[in-house]
Amino acid sequence: MKLNHFSVSHVEGKSRAGLLKTARGYIETPVFMPVGTAATVKAMLPETLEKIGAQILLCNTYHLMLRPGEKIVNQLGGLNKFMNWSGPILTDSGGFQVMSLSKLRELDEKGVTFRSHIDGKKFLLTPEASIMIQETLKSTIIMAFDECTPFPVEKEVAEKSMKLSSRWAERSKSSFKGSNGSILFGIQQGGMFKDLREESSRYLNDIGFDGYAIGGLAVGEPQKKMFEVLDYSTDFFPKDRPRYLMGVGKPGDIIGAVLRGVDMFDCVIPTRSGRNGQAFVKNGTINLKNAQYQLDSSPIDESCFCYCCSNYSRGYLSHLVRSNEILASMLLTHHNLHYYMGLMKNIRELIKRGEFTTFAKQFFK
Amino acid sequence: MKLNHFSVSHVEGKSRAGLLKTARGYIETPVFMPVGTAATVKAMLPETLEKIGAQILLCNTYHLMLRPGEKIVNQLGGLNKFMNWSGPILTDSGGFQVMSLSKLRELDEKGVTFRSHIDGKKFLLTPEASIMIQETLKSTIIMAFDECTPFPVEKEVAEKSMKLSSRWAERSKSSFKGSNGSILFGIQQGGMFKDLREESSRYLNDIGFDGYAIGGLAVGEPQKKMFEVLDYSTDFFPKDRPRYLMGVGKPGDIIGAVLRGVDMFDCVIPTRSGRNGQAFVKNGTINLKNAQYQLDSSPIDESCFCYCCSNYSRGYLSHLVRSNEILASMLLTHHNLHYYMGLMKNIRELIKRGEFTTFAKQFFK
Repeated sequence: MKLNHFSVSHVEGKSRAGLLKTARGYIETPVFMPVGTAATVKAMLPETLEKIGAQILLCNTYHLMLRPGEKIVNQLGGLNKFMNWSGPILTDSGGFQVMSLSKLRELDEKGVTFRSHIDGKKFLLTPEASIMIQETLKSTIIMAFDECTPFPVEKEVAEKSMKLSSRWAERSKSSFKGSNGSILFGIQQGGMFKDLREESSRYLNDIGFDGYAIGGLAVGEPQKKMFEVLDYSTDFFPKDRPRYLMGVGKPGDIIGAVLRGVDMFDCVIPTRSGRNGQAFVKNGTINLKNAQYQLDSSPIDESCFCYCCSNYSRGYLSHLVRSNEILASMLLTHHNLHYYMGLMKNIRELIKRGEFTTFAKQFFK
Repeated sequence: MKLNHFSVSHVEGKSRAGLLKTARGYIETPVFMPVGTAATVKAMLPETLEKIGAQILLCNTYHLMLRPGEKIVNQLGGLNKFMNWSGPILTDSGGFQVMSLSKLRELDEKGVTFRSHIDGKKFLLTPEASIMIQETLKSTIIMAFDECTPFPVEKEVAEKSMKLSSRWAERSKSSFKGSNGSILFGIQQGGMFKDLREESSRYLNDIGFDGYAIGGLAVGEPQKKMFEVLDYSTDFFPKDRPRYLMGVGKPGDIIGAVLRGVDMFDCVIPTRSGRNGQAFVKNGTINLKNAQYQLDSSPIDESCFCYCCSNYSRGYLSHLVRSNEILASMLLTHHNLHYYMGLMKNIRELIKRGEFTTFAKQFFK
């Protein structure tokens, strides 16, 4: 019998506010995980991440197995000590990045053979290898190894892929040791097809995981399509397990997904767009490269109380962005992540007060 | 009569410990000024600079007049407000960078005509323009406009250039208003020739400045040559004014220059080398790109108590450098500037205790 690590404290419609217990502390959900691909959230100090309310970070297994290699991370104490972050860390399985970044990949029943995009070195990634790498990294939440189907995809292909992912999920579970108190999440696939999503979930539920992710979304489909899939996908999971929508997303995507019962998110948008000169404001984003901000003495957002908005004008940030200064990335990433952390906190409080549905309706108007 | 802004509290040989009063607060000398070329010390937050003991920053007039333009900086409140740094700021005159960075420059009695290295736009920089730009930027310490002679240089060329710089120094002084309580420094030139250095100083002393810089060094000459020039250069200045050696240097350069009576320094070495993966340690620098550090769990320097050394291993830093992560620049710049601030603090204390000469002898052994 598995100890349940997740408790839902408030429900409003399909939206849930809950608490996920990990070996590295509690996580209040719904939660957004800043992406720290190579064991660093780009341009952020870990202590600043903590200060702005980040509860858990995501690191990418594919990048870390290639550089510096999981054994080096392990010998330097594991991911937490390595990157000076004491809270929980979720690692993905590497499957998604192998397919999108590596060269000369070949997929068969066993796993994926590929060449590193850094130095061309050959690797074989299997469910067993992925789990072992994630345990060697000393990850807190480990993801099963899966194949992520693209969009659009023929049903036949989606079905074949989903069944392979299901067998890989079983092999992932079998090889998972749970050393360091880590927990294991399975990943639902099935493209945009309800019956495949349901079948995928049945496989996963039979195997039994500590949490369930929804994969194969945020792969280029329109938001409407994603919401259609989410309308039923979360229903196929047990209510007492956290649900994680991988790679999502913009604020509207997150609000819509929480409305449909999702608890966890990760996305490069706040960090990457910060490095590109974009800043989140109430009604979208502004691009600080635009000429109109060069003489603007106001902060990015008058109502924001982050370090960036408390001390710097749009005019100065515009200058930093135009000059390709590192400080531009530092300040804009800080602001954008502060925005995301504030959004998630707001969502949690609204659910607890039973006001989230009204807020979401207002938002989509 | 000019109010004297500088007081020497301790003298040991030619070395001095003193206090420079500026409109933005006191500066303990000998002091090192981190370089914030485009109104940002690359990869550093201003609050972190303050925390590690930075007393004054240097910004480059050439870069700021081109981007964003001094008028924009002024309209956004001046350099201090613009870049969120409340302490003193020294701006150079732009002369050095015009000659080293710009395109199609033409020098005559009036000044230098050049094209921006950013967009090819044409500018004319004169002593009057340089001073006005620096005042518009609201700089705390303003530098006279000069021509910096290269190394090596024929005596005839050095003499002609020094005399032009002297006339420009007079024009700089005449056009200086001292708005915002700013003070003005003159710059000694004369290549590696003692009589020219003496003549240059006589001109400057006759004009009268709040401080005196030594220009035309750190332009490629060996350290021995620089020390030879410094052996006499500082003697030509009044004892009750601060002396600033421009663009210097490595720790050994600084120690040798303080030994010869210099009070102020600036250099890109700690910041630039940090961005290139180099870190200062007791006996020089280490390059974190080297394979030997990949598995090294020790900090850059066991005896250093900076944020970087308190929290990160050489192994992790090596990974960040190899991955071109922004955090590598942030942490290594932090460590290197902390090292420089510690070095200067140590020098000040040693002078006050009369132990600096012994320390310097030991160092050069």
